[in-house]
Amino acid sequence: MENIPTLEQIQQAHHRIRPFIHRTPVMSSKLINEMAGCSIYFKCENFQKIGAFKMRGASNAVLSLPPTAISRGVATHSSGNHAQALAKAAANVGCKAYIVMPESAPVVKVKAVREYGAEIFFCDSSLQAREQTLRSVLKDTGASLIHPYDDYNIIAGQATAAFELIEEIPDLNILIAPVGGGGLLSGTCLAASYLLPEAIIIGGEPEGADDAFRSLQSGIIQPSIYPQTIADGLLTSLSERTFGIIKKHVKEIITVGDPEILVAMKLVWERMKIVIEPSAAVPLAAVFKKPEVFSGKRVGLILSGGNVDLDRNSFV
Amino acid sequence: MENIPTLEQIQQAHHRIRPFIHRTPVMSSKLINEMAGCSIYFKCENFQKIGAFKMRGASNAVLSLPPTAISRGVATHSSGNHAQALAKAAANVGCKAYIVMPESAPVVKVKAVREYGAEIFFCDSSLQAREQTLRSVLKDTGASLIHPYDDYNIIAGQATAAFELIEEIPDLNILIAPVGGGGLLSGTCLAASYLLPEAIIIGGEPEGADDAFRSLQSGIIQPSIYPQTIADGLLTSLSERTFGIIKKHVKEIITVGDPEILVAMKLVWERMKIVIEPSAAVPLAAVFKKPEVFSGKRVGLILSGGNVDLDRNSFV
Repeated sequence: MENIPTLEQIQQAHHRIRPFIHRTPVMSSKLINEMAGCSIYFKCENFQKIGAFKMRGASNAVLSLPPTAISRGVATHSSGNHAQALAKAAANVGCKAYIVMPESAPVVKVKAVREYGAEIFFCDSSLQAREQTLRSVLKDTGASLIHPYDDYNIIAGQATAAFELIEEIPDLNILIAPVGGGGLLSGTCLAASYLLPEAIIIGGEPEGADDAFRSLQSGIIQPSIYPQTIADGLLTSLSERTFGIIKKHVKEIITVGDPEILVAMKLVWERMKIVIEPSAAVPLAAVFKKPEVFSGKRVGLILSGGNVDLDRNSFV
Repeated sequence: MENIPTLEQIQQAHHRIRPFIHRTPVMSSKLINEMAGCSIYFKCENFQKIGAFKMRGASNAVLSLPPTAISRGVATHSSGNHAQALAKAAANVGCKAYIVMPESAPVVKVKAVREYGAEIFFCDSSLQAREQTLRSVLKDTGASLIHPYDDYNIIAGQATAAFELIEEIPDLNILIAPVGGGGLLSGTCLAASYLLPEAIIIGGEPEGADDAFRSLQSGIIQPSIYPQTIADGLLTSLSERTFGIIKKHVKEIITVGDPEILVAMKLVWERMKIVIEPSAAVPLAAVFKKPEVFSGKRVGLILSGGNVDLDRNSFV
């Protein structure tokens, strides 16, 4: 897709991916609403296939390829949820997936990608090594590169999460999503701009990877050079396509520190009895950080995923 | 209630408590089904009010009292989910709750009970001290004793969990629930015996508190003297009323060790993205322990609760 996805293209994406994704539930918590002073509707993408919203975008990207491209396969470099999502989305249609991963990737993530039948290429963990390995894979295989977020098919797929949320709760005043590379937030922007043009869009971002905050302030992309945060799904920086959309539609990026992220994550585990990953807790932490923005409002919040390493994450 | 609850009485209980409880969702996991070799329908009482099925029984017990008794209040001794459930069920109808708790109870549990407006009486942690303190509270206040499980109103309330599950999935071959004092398991027996008389009922029990297993083997109640297990909701032993029902309807008690309970609990957290307490993981551990019993069957499994201390429980 060459253009910013239209409403019709998002609807087509939704129709296309529906057999391959879950329609995730919308939950709320009376206690959290009381604490936050607003009504929060959590779109639970932690219950999505592969445990994260990334399944939406990857599915749409794969399913949008022409048959000849599908026969040659898809490729990306990722050690996170996008790798799993692309591997599974490809497997769903009998398409080969080539995933470049750093040798330092956690065994559990490598295992998950391999279980979906993807072929893995290991390399050093530097961005340079990853991109070089990916280039050589693309050249050798003729596979299509599926970027994790700088891709309008990906963005249209991620937009379907907010699309479903608005379908279910049609009178939201605010939508908030976490921002890393910006795929989810830009998709949220588009869905809201078409269906709920009066709604305010807010991004939640870790202080240790605050490129979207700084980029929005300055008006030009300011990548995070040494991002560091417990929200390991949000280490990436905005791209041209995501920034273009976010710049136009997002009213504010609220940044939060790791301790605030942990408090919000624990609250969701304890009170809502659902497992979310640190990245997914960032928007709730943002709500608590600036209560005046949300006070009395109906807030749609996208819980991006639930892939947390239980052996490494504890609250002790 | 003086008699073993009839189907009509369980239906009445359900009608009575409905405004005060959640109708909890039924979930399933493709991966867990593949691992277990059967189709498991998880009734998610971790999403119940106060985070456990106990809200059902406590609500029915309080709502079944005559107005004069409600005006005098209710009392129990408990440091677990029953204490919170009774405190909240009482508060729902403006009834006073007196809870006897050991001084050793975790601060977080004391706080939760107090937040529901209950009055707490502390005592030594011995059963003797608790019962003596409770007697004196009952004498001083004229409150009604609400036993956590040796009470047909409680049992009728707990039966509504299986009742809802069978309503939703009407062709189960097996129902399995954890067993501690036996309130949930005996309620499950009754609901199934009326609605699904062909279904097999199985109890899951920790090896370290295997009184139900031994009692069923010998035909007489064999309390656990020094129960010890990570499944801290299942330390109690069967009572006359619960054993009477369980003896008649339960085909088998499967016991599991703490390491097996932890594996099952972690699997549910990781794959289903929901938080359950160790006691709730016992039936799934039992399914994995004796796969031949469940092979190819449609299994209704009651996830009893999700109240786990995140600061103390980790998988590391």
